[in-house]
Amino acid sequence: MKAEEFLSENIKEALKNNPPGAWMPNLPKECIRLSSGYPDPELVPSSEIKKSVAVLLEEEQDLPLHYIGSPRINRLKEQIMKRLGERDIRVSDSEILITSGACQAIDLIARIFLDEKAIVAVEAPTYMEALEIFQNYTKQILCVPIDEDGLRTDELEGMLAERKQKGLALPRFFYTIPTFQNPTGTTMSYERRKHLLKLAEEFDFLIVEDDAYRELAFKNHPVPIKAMDKSGRVLHVGSLSKIVAPGMRIGWIAGASEFISAASWFKKDLDHPFAQSTMAAYLENTNLDEKLHTLRAVYQAKCSALIRSLEQYFPKTVSWYVPEGGYFVWVKAPGVDTAQLLPQALAEGVSFVPGKYFFLDQKEGSDFLRLSFSYASEKEITAGIQKLGKLI
Amino acid sequence: MKAEEFLSENIKEALKNNPPGAWMPNLPKECIRLSSGYPDPELVPSSEIKKSVAVLLEEEQDLPLHYIGSPRINRLKEQIMKRLGERDIRVSDSEILITSGACQAIDLIARIFLDEKAIVAVEAPTYMEALEIFQNYTKQILCVPIDEDGLRTDELEGMLAERKQKGLALPRFFYTIPTFQNPTGTTMSYERRKHLLKLAEEFDFLIVEDDAYRELAFKNHPVPIKAMDKSGRVLHVGSLSKIVAPGMRIGWIAGASEFISAASWFKKDLDHPFAQSTMAAYLENTNLDEKLHTLRAVYQAKCSALIRSLEQYFPKTVSWYVPEGGYFVWVKAPGVDTAQLLPQALAEGVSFVPGKYFFLDQKEGSDFLRLSFSYASEKEITAGIQKLGKLI
Repeated sequence: MKAEEFLSENIKEALKNNPPGAWMPNLPKECIRLSSGYPDPELVPSSEIKKSVAVLLEEEQDLPLHYIGSPRINRLKEQIMKRLGERDIRVSDSEILITSGACQAIDLIARIFLDEKAIVAVEAPTYMEALEIFQNYTKQILCVPIDEDGLRTDELEGMLAERKQKGLALPRFFYTIPTFQNPTGTTMSYERRKHLLKLAEEFDFLIVEDDAYRELAFKNHPVPIKAMDKSGRVLHVGSLSKIVAPGMRIGWIAGASEFISAASWFKKDLDHPFAQSTMAAYLENTNLDEKLHTLRAVYQAKCSALIRSLEQYFPKTVSWYVPEGGYFVWVKAPGVDTAQLLPQALAEGVSFVPGKYFFLDQKEGSDFLRLSFSYASEKEITAGIQKLGKLI
Repeated sequence: MKAEEFLSENIKEALKNNPPGAWMPNLPKECIRLSSGYPDPELVPSSEIKKSVAVLLEEEQDLPLHYIGSPRINRLKEQIMKRLGERDIRVSDSEILITSGACQAIDLIARIFLDEKAIVAVEAPTYMEALEIFQNYTKQILCVPIDEDGLRTDELEGMLAERKQKGLALPRFFYTIPTFQNPTGTTMSYERRKHLLKLAEEFDFLIVEDDAYRELAFKNHPVPIKAMDKSGRVLHVGSLSKIVAPGMRIGWIAGASEFISAASWFKKDLDHPFAQSTMAAYLENTNLDEKLHTLRAVYQAKCSALIRSLEQYFPKTVSWYVPEGGYFVWVKAPGVDTAQLLPQALAEGVSFVPGKYFFLDQKEGSDFLRLSFSYASEKEITAGIQKLGKLI
């Protein structure tokens, strides 16, 4: 039997292009991780979660360990709806679905809207896993550049108008991370958010707003696109991964009930009763606003340490966007092939993500790198940037 | 905006045919659940899992709460591989993938092999969620009847030969639950297992062996088809849901490394680091063989109570298979429309699953019902069957 013959051509191609561990080997413990989009280890509430599990299982015995999970699971949804409401995203019970992190949310959205004939539009650069997910469904991906004010909606408008004029199909949805974008750290301006919504109306597409970093604003909270949406065109994707713990895998989709029903159909049993019950119990006894206050202060300080180190140790030709929240700084190092730089950096004990991995066409972004200030300590950040500065 | 217009025809049809809660409403607490394929609540190790979480998070702090999870996760895989080895299923590290329960395993398998042109073959009746998953990918599902010795491989052979002769496409894979089948409780005989493997060779298809109930044998352990597989045609799907706790969502696929790589590609971040780390810690300190010994004795006693009650309270025209393990008894009540019976049964405080939901063509199976002896206590089982007996 030839195993390969049973697999579809699409899958064979995906596996060839993306062998496991291709872009990042396993990192040794002592490596300074400026690559990882992980929360700060000291901010992950392991002892509180331990307590929450103890309370949960004492009070509810086996319930959280069955398929359906604890009765608290409904309260998890309520708590998330309440927080969304505070950001002017008002959804009813049938308009929200809890998912296994933002990643499952994106995958479910791709499943309900995309097929090989469908077109999807994204920012360039964008979140690499979203790009990979979309490519599992369609090869037709439109990429629209971003600048310091986020998505270039003027460029998008030009592309859409041209396609319409030529009688070409228009995208089913635009996937954006408007706030503290991954990988660039940029935030889409209010004017452009309005413009994007207007284009969605005019060219009849949906908007998928991935808002995983929204709570990590150093100063102002940008208005979510979903809060500006009057027609139900926006699906809002969120997550507790960046503010509580990614290993719990709690995310959501908020949007029109028709879409939520369709996503639920594909989700089926792919639920996590124990993790969701635990998160519900944790949130019950946590002042999340207070915790977020701490998170923002810590990440802002770490971001400042990173920027200061870049100014001190990197050549003057290098430039970056200064983020107003989130986890990442996007750095342009003209003339440097950052994919070739990575092995040298790893040998020196510091990691980053080469820019090309955030582009559909990996010939782009070769002189960019994404630096994360979330996981490493301030001291490590400074030492890591110093090492990288020597190599560039 | 019309939300429906964005959804594919397939999805709209699936939602129309399967509205949420269609086949079973939420059951009140006092209802005797002969419908649920849940483990016995007293056998779900909630206090041990509480202890495991405490040990895990004390020893490893934030590690199990990150994307990657605890270093123990690798040991979870090793422990599952060791258990498979004891059943003569020998796989290497690249031949096994941990999934979110058997359900995600089946979904991933469907994703890598099925498209709308593909044919899949299943037992009739079979696991309803698997049927739903396959229908998300293809409308071409061949159904092969089963009897007390499991799959009628002679019927399958006839179908395949006829298709081949007519130049029709053959199935990509056959999905079977050969041991203590859901919903019938039957077990495929050794001869038929050999026959199915021979047919897979001859007609060049794969076998997906869903073995979720295997450890719950009252007496003999049937040989897994995977253990008889010399050519790598069998993908073995397993789960800890029925023997530890379904809410932890730990399952796996064991099979050829090419298939495992492809399934991993689609799985991506849909992992559950916290639940997997917890399960690894739990298994470390558990004598699973001893626990299984208890499980088998409890379920065998409950099965006997169910069978005794059927003999006592059901009319003589009613018949059933006596299972040798697992969770289910499949009952034929000639002349009774079991879907119409359900609301009456629920009004009396007892639930079951009407047979038709386990068939692709829901015109079949109308006089069958699936009874589960796993969740209710012996006393409840007796009382429940007495109530049902009065209604039939």
